[in-house]
Amino acid sequence: MKILLDMMGGDNAPLAPLEGAAQVIKAHSDIEIVGLGDEQAVRALAQEKNIPLTGITLVNCTQNIEMDDEPALAIRRKKDSPTVVGLSMLRDGEGDAFVSAGSTGALHVGSSLILRTLKGIKRPALACMVPSKEKNYLLVDCGANAECRPDMLQAFGIMGSCYMNKVNGVADPVVGLANNGAEETKGPPLYQQAHQLLKETPGLNFMGNIEPRDVPMGYADVVVCDGFTGNVILKMTEGMAKMILTILKGMFKKNIGGMIAALLLKKDLFALKKRMDSEEVGGAPLLGAKCPVIKAHGSSSGKAIKNAILQAKTCVEKDLCGTMQAALNEMNARQKATEQTASAESQE
Amino acid sequence: MKILLDMMGGDNAPLAPLEGAAQVIKAHSDIEIVGLGDEQAVRALAQEKNIPLTGITLVNCTQNIEMDDEPALAIRRKKDSPTVVGLSMLRDGEGDAFVSAGSTGALHVGSSLILRTLKGIKRPALACMVPSKEKNYLLVDCGANAECRPDMLQAFGIMGSCYMNKVNGVADPVVGLANNGAEETKGPPLYQQAHQLLKETPGLNFMGNIEPRDVPMGYADVVVCDGFTGNVILKMTEGMAKMILTILKGMFKKNIGGMIAALLLKKDLFALKKRMDSEEVGGAPLLGAKCPVIKAHGSSSGKAIKNAILQAKTCVEKDLCGTMQAALNEMNARQKATEQTASAESQE
Repeated sequence: MKILLDMMGGDNAPLAPLEGAAQVIKAHSDIEIVGLGDEQAVRALAQEKNIPLTGITLVNCTQNIEMDDEPALAIRRKKDSPTVVGLSMLRDGEGDAFVSAGSTGALHVGSSLILRTLKGIKRPALACMVPSKEKNYLLVDCGANAECRPDMLQAFGIMGSCYMNKVNGVADPVVGLANNGAEETKGPPLYQQAHQLLKETPGLNFMGNIEPRDVPMGYADVVVCDGFTGNVILKMTEGMAKMILTILKGMFKKNIGGMIAALLLKKDLFALKKRMDSEEVGGAPLLGAKCPVIKAHGSSSGKAIKNAILQAKTCVEKDLCGTMQAALNEMNARQKATEQTASAESQE
Repeated sequence: MKILLDMMGGDNAPLAPLEGAAQVIKAHSDIEIVGLGDEQAVRALAQEKNIPLTGITLVNCTQNIEMDDEPALAIRRKKDSPTVVGLSMLRDGEGDAFVSAGSTGALHVGSSLILRTLKGIKRPALACMVPSKEKNYLLVDCGANAECRPDMLQAFGIMGSCYMNKVNGVADPVVGLANNGAEETKGPPLYQQAHQLLKETPGLNFMGNIEPRDVPMGYADVVVCDGFTGNVILKMTEGMAKMILTILKGMFKKNIGGMIAALLLKKDLFALKKRMDSEEVGGAPLLGAKCPVIKAHGSSSGKAIKNAILQAKTCVEKDLCGTMQAALNEMNARQKATEQTASAESQE
């Protein structure tokens, strides 16, 4: 299996991608890595840090998309960037998946424009695993599509369910629609209509609406919403965890009692902090792209890049994209049949 | 000053309203309470619990709006409910403010239909104080208007700023627009347009967008958003606090070390839990209603009702509605002037 890897994306590039790639190669003989980026810089760093390049083919890219580049413009103009080269190679069958810690916007736009999307999907959704009380859940869309139509939310539910089943091994994943009330009639029209579509989707384990208060409790395996709302859920999770952990830190430093308590709880507190850390939960798949594309966190370490590559590997092995396409085809066929019935009935 | 009080709203009615009213009367000789509800039941309870009715005038209501009543329908049909009677009396000058722990939806619809709104406001916004790291902030709208126009978000900012200044005594409150990025161009069109309007509002201390990650840090005194997003922010705050506090509880119960740590931190943990409790932060004002209307939490205790009444008192004393109307008038005058200039320029 050939994984295409952006060597220049993220705060710690090219060191983190290099370390991640080397760690994967060392443990997985079935993976070949194609590293895209400034070949000379990568080679020099590999030598300096004594990281072997065995199993890693380097493809030189003379450009790079920066975080402040306008995504659509960058995709058109920076043809020799790892993002554009990687997605083009993926489209042309020269790799099985693409992993990048670079600009999310460029990866999202590039996936639509270069790699293209599954049939029935106009723009891929960004999904990510978010920590909750019981278990991590998949949030779709967590920020890519600020504006959505009801059928997009339905597709998010279907693709999210496929992902949790194939990649995370959850049998019959519970899908919830984030909404401001349990009743079907709650929320703006987008959410009311999406609720009906999700409810009617065959084979989907749809629990109905999930209120934001219950989202952190982990009652759903997949939480569906538009990208604006998803961003709020994701960032409120981060912000609230940070806020409460900061308050706790204050308690521990306040006096000798606090310090003793901190020592007693040390291991558990470390685990809690780690669990709340978005870096620990892996990369974010772009669901709906024609082939597996994984967006690794911008601040990814070598370990995080390694995990993102292994996530991509599972997507390929389990034929995630094929499974999602089959499920989307079924949804589309059913919708067409319903429309035809409705039109035939109205003509009678 | 005469405060109208719904005696039948909330989970603990009529006991909580009765206790709250009695506590207020005892400490504030300038307040007169008009209690609306089942007079016989209230009198019987007052006698049973030995709560004096001095300073409380009871107005008998034969109906009550329940939580599962459809708000608009209930306002039309239940004319003799505390909500409809209270808002009518307020409109007719038979009271200075209305406090209710009953149905939020009915109070919201009723405020528009019966009491009416300030000039330039179509529907009032529900605002509430939300705990954050540094201090509590005012979230507007926290759930009443799921769909908003850009000028509504502008008005939320203006009214929220007036409220924090007049009622909470914050000088020049910092107003932030909840959005998925710091740049002006971020978010859906609604948020991009609202950003421009808020930026151009004279006298408003607008900090620009505030990312949801920073909302719990308390960087803004007023956080502006549509009611759907506001509900997500409010409920994620609740949910995340509950989740992390539950995990902490697990640590404390796990072993003897945890138990000792819990003992050492007892006071601080209690304070943290209390701080995260929505019940502690008072009632939610319906900003934009013609006179002060305070929605107390459904699970309000006597103390919470007392606090909501005192909140209403401050709104009256500081002429909150008059101040908000003056600020809104200025906004409208400026907008008209801008439109006229633009139209004159286009005709040249």
